[in-house]
Amino acid sequence: MKRRYLVIILLLTCYTISHAQTTTQKSTIIDSVFVCPPCGSCDYQTFDKAGKCPMCGMTLISMSLNDFKKQLNLKPVTVCFYIQDGVELLDFAGPMEVFTTAGFHIVTVSKTKSELHTNGLSFIPQYSIKDAPKADVLVVFGGSFAATVADTAVISWIRAQRTTASYFLSVCTGAYILGKAGILDNMTATTYFLQIDNLQKAFPNTKVLANTRFVDNGNIITTAGISAGIDGALHLVEKLRGRDYAKSIAQTIEYDKWIPEQGLVLNKGN
Amino acid sequence: MKRRYLVIILLLTCYTISHAQTTTQKSTIIDSVFVCPPCGSCDYQTFDKAGKCPMCGMTLISMSLNDFKKQLNLKPVTVCFYIQDGVELLDFAGPMEVFTTAGFHIVTVSKTKSELHTNGLSFIPQYSIKDAPKADVLVVFGGSFAATVADTAVISWIRAQRTTASYFLSVCTGAYILGKAGILDNMTATTYFLQIDNLQKAFPNTKVLANTRFVDNGNIITTAGISAGIDGALHLVEKLRGRDYAKSIAQTIEYDKWIPEQGLVLNKGN
Repeated sequence: MKRRYLVIILLLTCYTISHAQTTTQKSTIIDSVFVCPPCGSCDYQTFDKAGKCPMCGMTLISMSLNDFKKQLNLKPVTVCFYIQDGVELLDFAGPMEVFTTAGFHIVTVSKTKSELHTNGLSFIPQYSIKDAPKADVLVVFGGSFAATVADTAVISWIRAQRTTASYFLSVCTGAYILGKAGILDNMTATTYFLQIDNLQKAFPNTKVLANTRFVDNGNIITTAGISAGIDGALHLVEKLRGRDYAKSIAQTIEYDKWIPEQGLVLNKGN
Repeated sequence: MKRRYLVIILLLTCYTISHAQTTTQKSTIIDSVFVCPPCGSCDYQTFDKAGKCPMCGMTLISMSLNDFKKQLNLKPVTVCFYIQDGVELLDFAGPMEVFTTAGFHIVTVSKTKSELHTNGLSFIPQYSIKDAPKADVLVVFGGSFAATVADTAVISWIRAQRTTASYFLSVCTGAYILGKAGILDNMTATTYFLQIDNLQKAFPNTKVLANTRFVDNGNIITTAGISAGIDGALHLVEKLRGRDYAKSIAQTIEYDKWIPEQGLVLNKGN
């Protein structure tokens, strides 16, 4: 519904720009527009003069029409958050903040649509593994992960996402879930700092590294614990949208401490 | 219920320790115990030997009995999260992760108990402003804050918390909510980097600072945007529990980038 609204705005905007170009061709050619800094809610809205965005209150920035058109033509990205009961809050909330700010579409999935509990909050996932839509990225998280790792139906579903998802990201002990699904076989990975040895023992075919903020194997990324999910998500935004865009997302969420090179990026394509 | 369970564990633990001291006084005096690193779920559980916590899987650490007793005697802290519809996810999820890891008790409150929507997630608050319990700390957040600032019933309730809460913390544009309630009068404050000038204009009796991760006036703390809430929450943990404990919380959530001195701490007591 929201996406449809944005499409309507876009069509109107394109008409307005086109119309303005026709009627003002003897005076000024419009070659730039004013837009919001990325905030996930009104990134596709344009304005004809400087000021504050009436939707989110941020100060508008000037952008060339060409750059804006490039932004519009970017392939949409759908990210599936597989979330188990007892998930660690910041494990998923950090990446969710990053991906929504980047304009990615988020879906939350769990085994069933029963209420999920995290530290301080309870909520209902949008989908179960029976009706989850296809996604470009699958992300899994730590916190009470043992029951998920032991659940053959869930692990089969995670494994099956290899046929549709282009990227896999685990945060913290979510690495156990990817490992159990065979996704970390012959890969290099990391996890929560207190679980490095245990993960290595559990998955001897995976090389597990300590003291590494994230490890990128090309399509399979694992991060260290809890807050490191923010860094892993920013790294994935960088892979999909470029470093400048990822930097603008880090700036938008005031994560000034982001160091793009802090993880280990292995040369496995993509 | 969970707290009661912990109290029972404590009583049993104290009996066990006391009993062990009596029966082994001719051999070894027990002067240390094994406990979990802070994780918010089993911080009060003790074990008699090294190993992994059977509840959360973390490696147990040794602690002197005296230090453990000190930890037990700490005053419980209840933190009220006032959350409006449209709140920014990481604004509240960062502090919620920090405070739950520190063992603080969290309550979520909104104007009513209607469903709240944030970027990527929807949930029901535990309390409305009509039945919210007393709290030691009140925290407010940014994201669609304008409706809250204009709501006299909510602002009156926020203002009334001065009679019970010892600390106020705002994250991002949550500073507008504290400002409207008069809590920032004659204080120094900060907010989201794109809102510095606007906040200053809205509240001329407040000194608003840019480029400051957080500002601590003694009992009233404001932070910069979104991810800066993590730093503000860790600073409050440091005020209530000491720097070593706050450092252990930062380590637990792998927020290694925490710099305790990064904010401005004004000499106004506490």
